[in-house]
Amino acid sequence: MNKIIGILGGMGPVATIDTMEKIIKNTPAVCDQEHIPVIAVSFPDIPDRTANILTGGESTLNNMLVALKVLETAGAGCIIMPCNTAHYWYEKLKATTGIHFLNIIEITCNKIVNERINNIAILATTGTIKAGLYQDRLRKEKVDFVVPDDIQQKRVMESIFAYKSGDGERAYLLLESVITQLENMGVERFIMGCSEIPVILSHCDNKDRYIDATEELVKRAVEWFYFG
Amino acid sequence: MNKIIGILGGMGPVATIDTMEKIIKNTPAVCDQEHIPVIAVSFPDIPDRTANILTGGESTLNNMLVALKVLETAGAGCIIMPCNTAHYWYEKLKATTGIHFLNIIEITCNKIVNERINNIAILATTGTIKAGLYQDRLRKEKVDFVVPDDIQQKRVMESIFAYKSGDGERAYLLLESVITQLENMGVERFIMGCSEIPVILSHCDNKDRYIDATEELVKRAVEWFYFG
Repeated sequence: MNKIIGILGGMGPVATIDTMEKIIKNTPAVCDQEHIPVIAVSFPDIPDRTANILTGGESTLNNMLVALKVLETAGAGCIIMPCNTAHYWYEKLKATTGIHFLNIIEITCNKIVNERINNIAILATTGTIKAGLYQDRLRKEKVDFVVPDDIQQKRVMESIFAYKSGDGERAYLLLESVITQLENMGVERFIMGCSEIPVILSHCDNKDRYIDATEELVKRAVEWFYFG
Repeated sequence: MNKIIGILGGMGPVATIDTMEKIIKNTPAVCDQEHIPVIAVSFPDIPDRTANILTGGESTLNNMLVALKVLETAGAGCIIMPCNTAHYWYEKLKATTGIHFLNIIEITCNKIVNERINNIAILATTGTIKAGLYQDRLRKEKVDFVVPDDIQQKRVMESIFAYKSGDGERAYLLLESVITQLENMGVERFIMGCSEIPVILSHCDNKDRYIDATEELVKRAVEWFYFG
C-alpha cells in the first residue's frame, strides 16, 4: 500500500474539498496515477467547535475521535485536519494515535516566524481566538500581531456562518469590511486562520496579503508524501 | 452512526472533488451539521481503466477492490464510483459487497429513457465506448443516439488525458471542437459519460444540452441519504 494522506474533515465540508484541491495543486502529477492517495472523512455532524470551546455542551472531541479511528483503520499514514478551531483538541487527538498528525497552527506559525512576517491580523473563529491558539505562539516569538476587536470579531464569525449557510456573497462582504478596517489600522498581512476563509475569499485578488493556513498544512502533507 | 455516502474515487482525483461539490450542492443544508457524512477514498494509483479494457495488462479490479474494502470497513452505507469506465467492473465489484452500490450508467440511462431524450451523443472514454456501457441499454430502449467517429473519439480521449495532465485549456478546446461537429450533424444533447467531462466543461454555458452522469449519480445518492 502506498502512503496515504488522511483528512479529518467535514469542518466544514467545503473546507475539506478546498484541502483536496490544494493537495492536487501542490502535486507535480501529469496523470491520475501520479497523484497522492487521499482518504477524506467528511463527517459534518461534528458539533460546532466554537460553541463547544465557549460554552461547553455537546462533545466535539468524541466525534473527532470516531473520524480519526476511521482514518487509522483505513491505513492513513499522515493526518491533516483542515479546521483551525478543532486544533483546540489537537493534543488529545494526537495522544490517541501513533499516526503522524500535522498541526495547522504550528505549521502556519512556523512560516510566519521563519519568514519574519509582522503586522499581522488573525482572522479566525471566535473559538480559535478565545482559546489563543495562534496568539500564544506568536507572542512567544515576539511577532507583531493584532486580533479583531469584539465588533469586528462578531462580523468575522457572522461571515463564517453565512458561508456555511450557503450565502457566499454575504460572507465575502462581511469579511472584506473587517479586512479593510484592519488594513486602515496598518495591518499588512492576514492569517486565514479558519479553513472557510480561503474559500470565502477565493475570488479575491491580492493573494500576497494572506497566509493561508490550509495551504501551508497541505504543503507539509505533500512534503511528507514525497520526503517522509 | 449516521448514514454515510462512500466515494470510490481517485479516477481521477478532480472528478472525486467534483462529486463531493455536487453532494453539497444537492443538499439543503444551512449549517455544517446538516451536511451529509461522506468518506472519499481517492486512490489515483488505480491503473488506467481504458487501457485495461482495451489491452488487458495491469489489473484495475484489484485496486478498486482495495478501495471498496476501505469504504466497507469505514461504515459506508451507499457506494458511488464517479468513473464511468470503471463500471465495466461494476458487477464484479458489487458481487463482493453487501453495501448498496449505485450504478452511474444505469441511473443516467434511466433519466434519458424516463425523460424521452433523443438525438444524443455519448461523450466518454474509449474504454466506455468500446465496452458498450451506454450503447447496450440505449439501443434496447430504442433511444436515438450516436457515438463519435474514430477521429472524434481520439480527440475526446486526448481531451480527457490533457485534463488529467493539468492542461485544462487544451482539454476544453479539443472537446468543444468535437461537440461543435456533432451539433452540426444534428446532435441536440450530450451525455457527459466520463467524470472528467463536467470538470473540463465547467465554465461552459448552455448546461441544458448536457446530461451530467456524475450529477445524476449524486442526486440518487442524496435521495438514498434522505429517503433510504
